[in-house]
Amino acid sequence: MTMTNAFDPDRPADLVPDDAALIERRKNALGPAYRLFYEEPLHLVRGEGVWLWDGQGRKYLDAYNNVVSVGHCHPKVVEAITAQAQVLNTHTRYLHEGPVAYAERLLATMPDALGHVMFTCTGSEANDLALRIARSSLGREGVIVTRHAYHGVTEAVSELSPSLGRFVPRSARVRLVDGPDALRIPPEEQGARLAADLARAIGEMRADGIEPAAFICDTVFSSDGLYPDPKGFLQPAVDLIRAEGGIFIADEVQPGFARTGEAWWGFQRHGLAPDMVTMGKPMGNGFPVSGVAMRPGLVAEFGAGARYFNTFGGNPVACAAGMAVMDVIEDEGLHENARKVGGALKAALADLCAGRDDIADVRGAGLFIAVECVRDRDGAAPDGARAAFIVNHMRRNGVLISATGPGGNILKIRPPLVLREDEAAILVDALKAALLAG
Amino acid sequence: MTMTNAFDPDRPADLVPDDAALIERRKNALGPAYRLFYEEPLHLVRGEGVWLWDGQGRKYLDAYNNVVSVGHCHPKVVEAITAQAQVLNTHTRYLHEGPVAYAERLLATMPDALGHVMFTCTGSEANDLALRIARSSLGREGVIVTRHAYHGVTEAVSELSPSLGRFVPRSARVRLVDGPDALRIPPEEQGARLAADLARAIGEMRADGIEPAAFICDTVFSSDGLYPDPKGFLQPAVDLIRAEGGIFIADEVQPGFARTGEAWWGFQRHGLAPDMVTMGKPMGNGFPVSGVAMRPGLVAEFGAGARYFNTFGGNPVACAAGMAVMDVIEDEGLHENARKVGGALKAALADLCAGRDDIADVRGAGLFIAVECVRDRDGAAPDGARAAFIVNHMRRNGVLISATGPGGNILKIRPPLVLREDEAAILVDALKAALLAG
Repeated sequence: MTMTNAFDPDRPADLVPDDAALIERRKNALGPAYRLFYEEPLHLVRGEGVWLWDGQGRKYLDAYNNVVSVGHCHPKVVEAITAQAQVLNTHTRYLHEGPVAYAERLLATMPDALGHVMFTCTGSEANDLALRIARSSLGREGVIVTRHAYHGVTEAVSELSPSLGRFVPRSARVRLVDGPDALRIPPEEQGARLAADLARAIGEMRADGIEPAAFICDTVFSSDGLYPDPKGFLQPAVDLIRAEGGIFIADEVQPGFARTGEAWWGFQRHGLAPDMVTMGKPMGNGFPVSGVAMRPGLVAEFGAGARYFNTFGGNPVACAAGMAVMDVIEDEGLHENARKVGGALKAALADLCAGRDDIADVRGAGLFIAVECVRDRDGAAPDGARAAFIVNHMRRNGVLISATGPGGNILKIRPPLVLREDEAAILVDALKAALLAG
Repeated sequence: MTMTNAFDPDRPADLVPDDAALIERRKNALGPAYRLFYEEPLHLVRGEGVWLWDGQGRKYLDAYNNVVSVGHCHPKVVEAITAQAQVLNTHTRYLHEGPVAYAERLLATMPDALGHVMFTCTGSEANDLALRIARSSLGREGVIVTRHAYHGVTEAVSELSPSLGRFVPRSARVRLVDGPDALRIPPEEQGARLAADLARAIGEMRADGIEPAAFICDTVFSSDGLYPDPKGFLQPAVDLIRAEGGIFIADEVQPGFARTGEAWWGFQRHGLAPDMVTMGKPMGNGFPVSGVAMRPGLVAEFGAGARYFNTFGGNPVACAAGMAVMDVIEDEGLHENARKVGGALKAALADLCAGRDDIADVRGAGLFIAVECVRDRDGAAPDGARAAFIVNHMRRNGVLISATGPGGNILKIRPPLVLREDEAAILVDALKAALLAG
């Protein structure tokens, strides 16, 4: 959520007059909580595949949007939405094949221990529901998250999102542990270090009379700066939270749906079976749909006592959109494409950055790649200003990425999964030009 | 949320074999938190206008769904969704005319004091965001709701939803007041009684060291049993919460978007300008979209400090759906239709029930009507079993309604706003048959 490269409304920008007027109207109508990407905001009017167009007909390579994971305006998803919306759109208090078949299909991609799926509309709602079920099932309140985590924006999950900044309140029932760190911690120590930090957080929580209900993390640690490796390093922390009577919740909103190129889910990279899995963003390619998968035992009492009804969650159109996304991922071989094109892109970026003092690391999995900008290679001091310069230079050059991490210094490259190798080469050229420019 | 008339999976029902199999698969895939309407659940496959069809081609008059407020599968809404989904679906960190124009149009229907709209995806998210902004802006935590209120299912707003039952935890920062009561309280005393209860709740809260941030209510008190009258009775409570330094939040998820037949919003019935307005269900006719309108001063600090980004909230497709719904309401004169057909329906139901000992009241506004079932007219003891019998009888007879209120004894009649007078007559006949039958 770090936005050091964001648009500053008080700084003059190179905008067409209509856009300046729209920004003013937007400020009046939507208020001060909304932010725009880039020093020169983008007014987009059309999208197709990995491409976006502005009102002047200028074309941009979208290397950042993981919502439209199977490509902007994919015709099969649009067709599925239209076909179902024309016929019926009710809710889950009537019988319908849609949510049942979709839940079955999602569960088929997951370990057998996960037996039910419940549907919500946003990643925030999915994490909020997971939290309600975990706390209710265990009769415990405590949750541990990483220091720059992002899990959503409801009151309860904004507590779990320290990347939102100090303004957002966090109660004693939420504790932080350091995220992984590829520059300062040797890979083989990553797992033990995370587990040791988790043990300390649980101890501090208990000293305040709070029992740990859950350790929740994004299984590739997107907001902490993207740390997919080494494979398996999550296991000691997961073993520990379970030994202490809590559960492990895998937040798959960012790594899920084939993003990492090897599996449907990021947790599969670690050979794990989570107690709960939350899903969102790419699930409907832009149609609002999200969900929670869980071990059946966790929801038995909650299901009987609290019930749960989400008016739009799992409605027939949402399920049609979700099914179409899974069809496209399979039919177009997008796991394989993410693995292959992502692997080649990561190698090309590593080549480009090799030996540079201002880039300390290039890492990633599938089509999710991080490039870490630093002031000097040895000290590894984060250089957020440099990352912001690069992001804005690339945007002016027609390639869209962003930056993340506690220092806002980690370039976040996360294109739709349909990216081709020739399109990846355009991205590499744009980063090369930005590195040469400043 | 009371579901005394719900399907009991352990009771044999008159189902086609495929439906019994689907119910079994559904229980396995979705788990125990999901409920089905009616003793004999409905497997729906098609909808159009106020009509729904099951797989056997049987037709049902939908007199309950307020999500598809402009009619099932309205072609103009489907067309707007399709047209936008084919062209672009991104989010609010790029410039786009959609959310700006839609926010401006919503604000044009509201008092001038409300200056910004923020977009979310569900009514729960809208109320959760309103709560975050209110608490942050006022530096206070306390909220007062009615005793059978429903405001959503996130952790924070489930606290504000006592109609979910005792299983759902409620902290000391939330206090309850009795909802209105048409049978036991004379209309002219309704306003003073609500304000007196609110004063007592604020006093009790303060005795525990909690300051009141907000009084939030559904402006027609849907879950408490539907109390739209007398007009203006909300004013003393609103004056009081403001005098005590808190704000008034109007939850328009149920009464909003022309449901009451006289205005866009239920609060307009009371001649009020709320400090915040939350919107949901009918906003996109089934497309997940919701929002919060607010006095600009409330969000100034939250906007700068917390920011707010909702990935799907206010995306171009959601805004296209919302705009199309407003177009249809205006083009088809649905305010006037709700007022006229709703008025005639209420009069016909009052005629039908006049002099009956088992119906104590028929009330409502526009196309939102309540029929209160009691054991005997004088004692006014709620008869939930009678209401459940009627709801299930009407369902077998091809007309869909439900029941609400603390005793589950209040028939809730809430058809799409396109209901015609001849269709309303079918509903009256079905209720007549149910009253004669048992």
